Order: sequence, then structure tokens, then C-alpha cells
Amino acid sequence: MAKIAVLGAGSWGTALSIVLADNKHDVRLWTHNKDQALEMNETHKNEKYLDTIIPESIIAYNDMKEAVSNVDAIVIVVPTKAIREVCQKLTTVLMNKPVLIHASKGIEPNTLKRVSEIIDEEMPQYIYEDVVVLSGPSHAEEVAQRQPTTVTVASLTEEHAKYAQDLFFNESFRVYTSDDLIGIELGGALKNIIALGAGISDGLGFGDNAKAALITRGLAEMTRLGVALGAQPLSFLGLPGVGDLIVTCTSVHSRNWKAGHLLGKGYQLEEVLNQMEMVVEGVRTTKAAYQFAQEENVDMPITKGIYDILFEGKHPKEIVQQLMNRTKKDEMADIFTERK
Amino acid sequence: MAKIAVLGAGSWGTALSIVLADNKHDVRLWTHNKDQALEMNETHKNEKYLDTIIPESIIAYNDMKEAVSNVDAIVIVVPTKAIREVCQKLTTVLMNKPVLIHASKGIEPNTLKRVSEIIDEEMPQYIYEDVVVLSGPSHAEEVAQRQPTTVTVASLTEEHAKYAQDLFFNESFRVYTSDDLIGIELGGALKNIIALGAGISDGLGFGDNAKAALITRGLAEMTRLGVALGAQPLSFLGLPGVGDLIVTCTSVHSRNWKAGHLLGKGYQLEEVLNQMEMVVEGVRTTKAAYQFAQEENVDMPITKGIYDILFEGKHPKEIVQQLMNRTKKDEMADIFTERK
Repeated sequence: MAKIAVLGAGSWGTALSIVLADNKHDVRLWTHNKDQALEMNETHKNEKYLDTIIPESIIAYNDMKEAVSNVDAIVIVVPTKAIREVCQKLTTVLMNKPVLIHASKGIEPNTLKRVSEIIDEEMPQYIYEDVVVLSGPSHAEEVAQRQPTTVTVASLTEEHAKYAQDLFFNESFRVYTSDDLIGIELGGALKNIIALGAGISDGLGFGDNAKAALITRGLAEMTRLGVALGAQPLSFLGLPGVGDLIVTCTSVHSRNWKAGHLLGKGYQLEEVLNQMEMVVEGVRTTKAAYQFAQEENVDMPITKGIYDILFEGKHPKEIVQQLMNRTKKDEMADIFTERK
Repeated sequence: MAKIAVLGAGSWGTALSIVLADNKHDVRLWTHNKDQALEMNETHKNEKYLDTIIPESIIAYNDMKEAVSNVDAIVIVVPTKAIREVCQKLTTVLMNKPVLIHASKGIEPNTLKRVSEIIDEEMPQYIYEDVVVLSGPSHAEEVAQRQPTTVTVASLTEEHAKYAQDLFFNESFRVYTSDDLIGIELGGALKNIIALGAGISDGLGFGDNAKAALITRGLAEMTRLGVALGAQPLSFLGLPGVGDLIVTCTSVHSRNWKAGHLLGKGYQLEEVLNQMEMVVEGVRTTKAAYQFAQEENVDMPITKGIYDILFEGKHPKEIVQQLMNRTKKDEMADIFTERK
């Protein structure tokens, strides 16, 4: 039994807390929202984020210092844009040397920095043991219902990936390990670009053939960009790559798919973002990926097409025509390394 | 403009004929059914198989000798089990030396032979130029509606793959080439095993997380078996691999998914096959793949689980528990070559 603090009580943080509590760990769930902490401790519910009963053994905290006191591991599940702030706060309150596990699927716009890089920048390395990423095809609601789910954990040291695997593994939550920290972090972030594209395709009224083509060729683009950023190509074939991509592109619950769907129906980006109440990560990720691909000469025709729709006012139909009528190609030619 | 005979006037043969006619080729569509040929020539419809108007330039034939007279290419689109018979007939009527293109997504049970191998066995090589396979994520209905679709053509000689690419390529039908005949033929056949599994998972009431895991890990199994049979691993990352897998596993129209869905709901194989009016290719493919994997020591836990449900009367729930609780693993360890 380990002492674990989970930082972030959204749907995914709460679901991961439930997995850990099922495994008999001592779980402290921290939220920056005092009322939410009170609600969880009194009613054992977190109604705004997850429709489920939270095991009574999970204690909610609003005070981060208390939550992380003497813990063996910290699971960070806050939105990407809140990572820097949380790390700065952690730095001031951390006394022992826990393992850090993060399950945030984002990337920093402009810098293209991964979450583990941000953690590295914000916290002195002697105050934590190592960073592990947890990612995979996982709707939080299904995890809370103990539906079969598989994820991958990766870190630079095998020891800490295995440690995280042991913490989370149970009969409805299967955990694989990987040594490709970069690839596992990028898969979860880059898939949001393709999810936007899948939504656009559906919004245009195109069918399964078009969407399957987009997902398949989009996976090749993600892989090429990932390799240029230091990832192992095979990671994109795994659960946090193609697995997560499939879940996101075929689920009407995905925020990125929804935003794409509106774009495909002819709305402009500004109107779409006004309609969506939550952050659409894919929009910022598309911009960052496009800029990097331009600088580094990585061939990403789908990402470029989505960029042109988002930021250059191009009509989606025109982009599809362009994509369908490029030069005739060998399918696998330089799939992982294609340069323009 | 080429003279092309399409053999087989099911939904896929008819849709491919439409693509060729749109490209201004002289298309003869052969069917073994005389009434169907008459219907198509009189009404320009093929109502049993496809809800669309067939271009008037397509002429239907019931006489194979007439249909293939002086053609530059023959497109074979009959069910796998009819390939031997069609080849035997072709051998007696073929006078010139056309390129053979086949678009049949099956594999011979027991022998695990691919369609090009069957053609090779049944026809003397001097009467045709080469065999090309055409495969990819492509519902025939969407192709007939000129919805954007992508496929891959592969042959042992680059020249003939490019020839097939030129015949079919147009603004709504994008064609890639490949030199991996084996991989492209196997992708379309093996995906039916995983489609059965996806149906079983949905039939059990499991969610998107479980299905994404099954597709992802199933893709790894397909790849391992394919490699053992001589395919290139990367082909399974392409349109006829992961692309076709996604379309088949997420479409409720797939026969294999439907059969799996009934199995997941608790029906026995015999009852399921009685309910389905058409052949469920995945059932025979699962048996063949399982037997081959046993002999050659290829690790295929999902295929073995589906085999146990189909032929050993095991309950799907029991199989899921087994799959979720196997030894803890590194996700990518020997993904393409894993042996037991």
C-alpha cells in the first residue's frame, strides 16, 4: 500500500483516484476548488465532472501541502496550461522525494514542450524521484465504471515505469510499460490535430472511407513529427498512439472532434471557439505542429490543411480537393522520415 | 483509355466499375447471373447490391469470353471461395495477356493461401501479365457516391502497380502504390478476426476504451502473423491495415462485427451463423490464423481468445478476464516478432 496524492479533481483525476483506491492505496485527491473538496468529502460525489460514487477511502484536500505530505507518489492531472503553476507550488511544499506521474495530454503552444519538460524546467530535480507519463485510450467515465481499459506508462528509468505499472494495474485496468517518454507524451497531444480533421470530415458530410483515410495518413504525420522530436516510431502504433487516436476520432464526445465538426459545417474558428465552453487543445497544437513542420521540413499535408482552415480562412472542401489530388505516391515511401 | 473487364457484379465490383467508367475507360462488367446482366443493361441499376445509377457506358456481360475479349486489364472481385472456379474458366477463354487486378479481401481457410497464390496455382503464368491487389478502407456505397476514398495497389513489379494506380486514380478515389503484395493481401483478410472481437466487446456492453485496446493490440497480432507469413510490418500501418481495420471495427454494417456482437450477447456460433445470411469470413480466418500461430509459435492471445469463444464454447467474459490479467508487459517488446 502506497501513499499517493492526485493533483487535479477533474474527470480523469477522479477516475485515476478510483483505480488507486480500488488497489487499496491511501489516496489524497487535491483540488484548487475548496467547495469541490468539501462536496467530495461530504457526499463522495464529484457531480460536475463524473457521474459515479467515489470510494470513501479517498480523501479530498484543498491544501496542497497537507495533500502531498509524506506521499510516495504524486499523480499530476491538471490541464497543461496549469502545469507550471502547480509545479511552482509543489516546489514550495514538497518535503520528501516522491515519484511524479503525470496524465496530462497536452503540449505547450509555441514551445511544443511536453509536460515532463515543463516539470523539468519548473522543479529542481533533487526534490522528486523521476517523471512517469500515463497515457492511452481512456474515457474517464468508463474507467470509473470499471470497464476494461488499457494504458501505457513510460519513463526514462525502467524502475519507475514498473513502479507506476504496479500502482495502477488491476483486473479492469491493464497497464503496459514503455521506455519512450517522448513518444508516449506526444501521441496523446498530437492526436488532437487529427481529431479536429475527423470532425471536419464528418461535418462536411463525408463517410467512413474518408475518415479512415484521414486517421491512417494522420497517424503517419504524427509519427513523422514525433520522430523529428525524438520519439520512437513504434510508439505511435501503440495504445497512446493509434489506440487513443481511434477513441478520439470516433467519439462524438471529443471536444476536438466537436470543434472540427462545426468547422466542417462552415463556421469560422472564432464562432466555434465561442460555442465551445472548454479549451480545444487541438487548435493550439495544430499551430505549434505546423510551425515546427515548416521550420524542420517535415511533410504534414493534413496538418497544413487544418492550419489553413483554422487560421487562413480556407474552405474545408477546397482543402480536401487539394489532399486528394496531390502527386501519386508510394504509400510507405519514407513514412517515418518523409521530408518535403 | 483502356479496355477493362470487371469480373463480379456485387457491390464492390459495381463500385469499382463506376470509378473506371468515370475515368473514361471502356468497362465490361461480368456477372454469372444472366438476369442481373440484363437488369443492368436495361435499367442501369444493380438494385440488390448497390443503390445507385450505373453510368450507361458500362456494359454488363454474362458471357465471360465476350467480356474479356481483347481487354488490357481484368479486375477480379468475386468472393474468395469462387476465385478458383473463375480462374479455371478464365484460363479457357483468355486470348491476349492482360494485367490481373484483384480486390477480394479473403484468405483460403486451412491453407491460409492468399488470392494471388490461388490465381498463381490455377492459371498458367504465360496467359496474364502480372497480379495486382487493390485494398483499403472502402465501403462500396460511399465509392459509388464519389465520396473521398483512398486505397492501395500492390504487385511484385512496380510497373504494374503504377499501371493500376493510373487506371483508378481520380479526384475522389486516391490510389497509393506499394511493393508488398503479401502485406496488402493479408491486411484485408486478417482484420476480420479483430472485427469479430470488436463486435464481441460491444456485445458484452464494454465501451470505447476496451474496443480501442482490442483494435490496437489486435493490429500488433495481425502484424506479427503477417511478418511470419512474409509481409512487411509497415504495411499494417497503412490504409489496407489500420485504415481498413478502423472502418470494419467501427461500422455496424460489417458482417463480422455483427456476428461478433451476437456472440458477445451470448449466442452460440451455430445460432449466429444461422441468423447471418451471408458468409462470415472472420470465422474461417480465425481458425486458419489460430492453427498457423500454434504451429509457428506466433503469440496471438486475442485470436486464441476468439478461437476459444467460437470453437471451444468459452464464455466471452472469461476470455476478457484472461486477456486483462496476463503477465505485466512492456508494450512494444518484440511487437512485430513476439514468440511464445
